[in-house]
Amino acid sequence: MSKPTLAVVGATGAVGTVMLDILSNRPDVWGEIRLIASPRSAGKVLRVRGEDVVVQALSPEAFDGVDVAMFDVPDEVSAEWAPIAAARGAVAVDNSGAFRMDPDVPLVVPECNPEAARVRPKGIISNPNCTTLSMMAAMGALHREYGLKALVVASYQAVSGAGVAGPERLYDEVAALAGDRAIGTVAGDVRKAVPDLADSPFPAPIAFNVVPWAGSLKEDGWASEELKVRNESRKILGIPDLKVSATCVRVPVVTTHSLAVHATFSKPVTVEGARAILDAAPTVVVLDDPAAGVFPTPADVVGTDPTYVGRIRQALDFPDTLDLFVCGDNLRKGAALNTAEIAELVAAELSA
Amino acid sequence: MSKPTLAVVGATGAVGTVMLDILSNRPDVWGEIRLIASPRSAGKVLRVRGEDVVVQALSPEAFDGVDVAMFDVPDEVSAEWAPIAAARGAVAVDNSGAFRMDPDVPLVVPECNPEAARVRPKGIISNPNCTTLSMMAAMGALHREYGLKALVVASYQAVSGAGVAGPERLYDEVAALAGDRAIGTVAGDVRKAVPDLADSPFPAPIAFNVVPWAGSLKEDGWASEELKVRNESRKILGIPDLKVSATCVRVPVVTTHSLAVHATFSKPVTVEGARAILDAAPTVVVLDDPAAGVFPTPADVVGTDPTYVGRIRQALDFPDTLDLFVCGDNLRKGAALNTAEIAELVAAELSA
Repeated sequence: MSKPTLAVVGATGAVGTVMLDILSNRPDVWGEIRLIASPRSAGKVLRVRGEDVVVQALSPEAFDGVDVAMFDVPDEVSAEWAPIAAARGAVAVDNSGAFRMDPDVPLVVPECNPEAARVRPKGIISNPNCTTLSMMAAMGALHREYGLKALVVASYQAVSGAGVAGPERLYDEVAALAGDRAIGTVAGDVRKAVPDLADSPFPAPIAFNVVPWAGSLKEDGWASEELKVRNESRKILGIPDLKVSATCVRVPVVTTHSLAVHATFSKPVTVEGARAILDAAPTVVVLDDPAAGVFPTPADVVGTDPTYVGRIRQALDFPDTLDLFVCGDNLRKGAALNTAEIAELVAAELSA
Repeated sequence: MSKPTLAVVGATGAVGTVMLDILSNRPDVWGEIRLIASPRSAGKVLRVRGEDVVVQALSPEAFDGVDVAMFDVPDEVSAEWAPIAAARGAVAVDNSGAFRMDPDVPLVVPECNPEAARVRPKGIISNPNCTTLSMMAAMGALHREYGLKALVVASYQAVSGAGVAGPERLYDEVAALAGDRAIGTVAGDVRKAVPDLADSPFPAPIAFNVVPWAGSLKEDGWASEELKVRNESRKILGIPDLKVSATCVRVPVVTTHSLAVHATFSKPVTVEGARAILDAAPTVVVLDDPAAGVFPTPADVVGTDPTYVGRIRQALDFPDTLDLFVCGDNLRKGAALNTAEIAELVAAELSA
C-alpha cells in the first residue's frame, strides 16, 4: 500500500510545534501529513518536512482518509475528537490525559510495551504524561533485568510542561526581576515584583523559586501529576502493584524534566550492572562521572531525544535499591517524540 | 555573673552577615559582641545590635575573654581555630563540617537534642549542615511521636548555600540571559551564554537549570552533601541505624532550601496526626491547603526563621509513611539562627 496519511491535531501548540520539527527529522514513513488545529488557527501556514502546509480547522471531515491522527490538545478536546477520528477509520494517538487509564486504551512507550499498541479496541492509543515518560525508557530497561518493585520520585519539572504559557511566564518574570541583585532575599519580594499571578499558569512565582504543585487537586492532598506518575508507570510497565510515591515540583527551567529516582528492585542490583544495562539501552545515555563534572542537566540535554541518566548510586541503607538522576526533554520524549514513535509503530503495522 | 562575651568569627561572610542581623533581633543575652574575620577584612566596621563594631583580625589573642565563639568559616579554618578558641576558654560553636562527626563533639539542633550541648569534651559544639537543618525541626517533632525509621530525600538547594559567590553567580547568569526569550530551548545554549564557568561555584550553569551536585565526591558516587544528610540526621536524632538516601540538587533559588521528604516511621501515621504534631511544634509552620494555593515556596519564606511544611500526604503504597515538602531558610535556621540558638543554650548554662 502507499504510505499512510498522518494528521497532527493541535499543530500550533507547544507540543505540536515540536512535533513538526520531529516529523521533519524522522524516517519518512508518512504520505500526506495533514495539520489540524482549532478554527482560530485554521489557515495558518506551517512548515513540515520542508513543505508549507495550510492548517485545517478541526472537523469530522478533516479526518477523512487519515490513517493515524495524533492529538496534542487539552483533555476535553481529545475526549470529544479522538473517538470521532477513530470512527472515521483513523488510529488516534492521544497525548492528553483523557484515555490513559481506560482499560480499553493501551498506554504505550515503545521501549517498554510496543506490543500493547496493536490491541486498541477503541482505535485509540494513549501517550503517557511527560513526567512519567521522562524516566520510562530508563526504568523499563532496569525493570526487565531486575524487576521493579517500588519508586520514590521527586520531580524538577520544566515550565513548558504547562504549555506555551509556561515559558512565556518564566521569561516575563525573569525580565521583571533581572538586574535586581537582592531579589529573592526577603519573603514575598519575588511575589511583589512579578506580573499579576492571576495571569500565570503557576500558582506561585516561578522565577527564583520552586513550586511544589503540578496539575489539579485529587483526594487526600495528592496532585493529579503525582498520581499520574504512579498509575501510568504501573500500566506501562505492567506492574499493577508497583509501589510509587511521587512529589512533583515545578522549577524555573524552560524545557526538560528531571527526576530524582529511588528505585527498589526484586533482585540484587549493582551500579556497574545498572550502568551496563542503561548503556546498552538504545535510547538511554549515561552521563555519570561526577569527578569530571559529568551528570545530566536540563540546559545540556534540552532539544535532544534520549533519556539521560546520571548520579547512579547504590542506596546505602535500602536493599536492592538504586538512587538515580534522570533528565528527559518533556516536549520531545516526554510528548511529541513518543507520540511520533507510537504512530510509526502503527504505520509499520498498516504497511506490513 | 555579667552577660557572657560572644565572638563571631567569619562576620563578613554570607552566614556571618545574616548572623549580625539575627543577633540584632534575638533576646539580648550577650555582653560584648566581638567581630572577627580574616586579616583582609580586619578594620571593617559592621553594625550589630544598633552599634558599629570594628572587625578584628583572627588571632589567638582575639579570643581572650570570650565565653562563646561562633565560627562561620571554611572547614580548614575551623579545624585550626576552633580548638584555639576552646583552649583559650571559649565554647566554640562551629558551623563548618570540621567536627560534626567527631564523637567528642555534639551536633545540636535545639528542637531535637538540646541536652547534647552540655556535653562537649573538646569545648566545641557543631552546627549541622544547612540541608539537614532545613528539615530537622519538623522531622524531630514527627520522630518523637512516631519513631523515624527511614528517609528518602530529594533537595532543591539554594545558591547561597555555596556562600556569597552563589547568589552573585546566579544574578550574573540571569543578567546575561534575561531578554532572550528562546534561552533554555537548545542543548548548550545556556552554557554558551553565561559567563565563564571556571569562575562559578557550580559545575554547570545554574540559571534556567538544575544541577544534581552539591559538595565534593565521596566513595561510590555519593556527594558529600548527600552523606551529610544521612550521617548528621542519624547523630542529631539519635538513630544510628536510620535508613537514609538523599539526592542533592542545586536550583536557581537565592536562599531557602526545599526538600521532598518520604519518611517512614515505626508507628502508624495519619495526615491529621502529623499536621497536629507539626502545628504544635513551636518553630514549625504548616502551610498545607493546596486547594487554596497554600504550600511553602522559597520566595515566600526566605528571610524568616521557621521550618515550613506542606504537601503532607500519606503514602499510598508504603506503610507508615508520609510524603512532605519542607522549606527552610538555609542561612537562618539552616546556619546562623541555629548557631545563635546553640550559643544561647550555652549562655543560659554559663549564666545559671
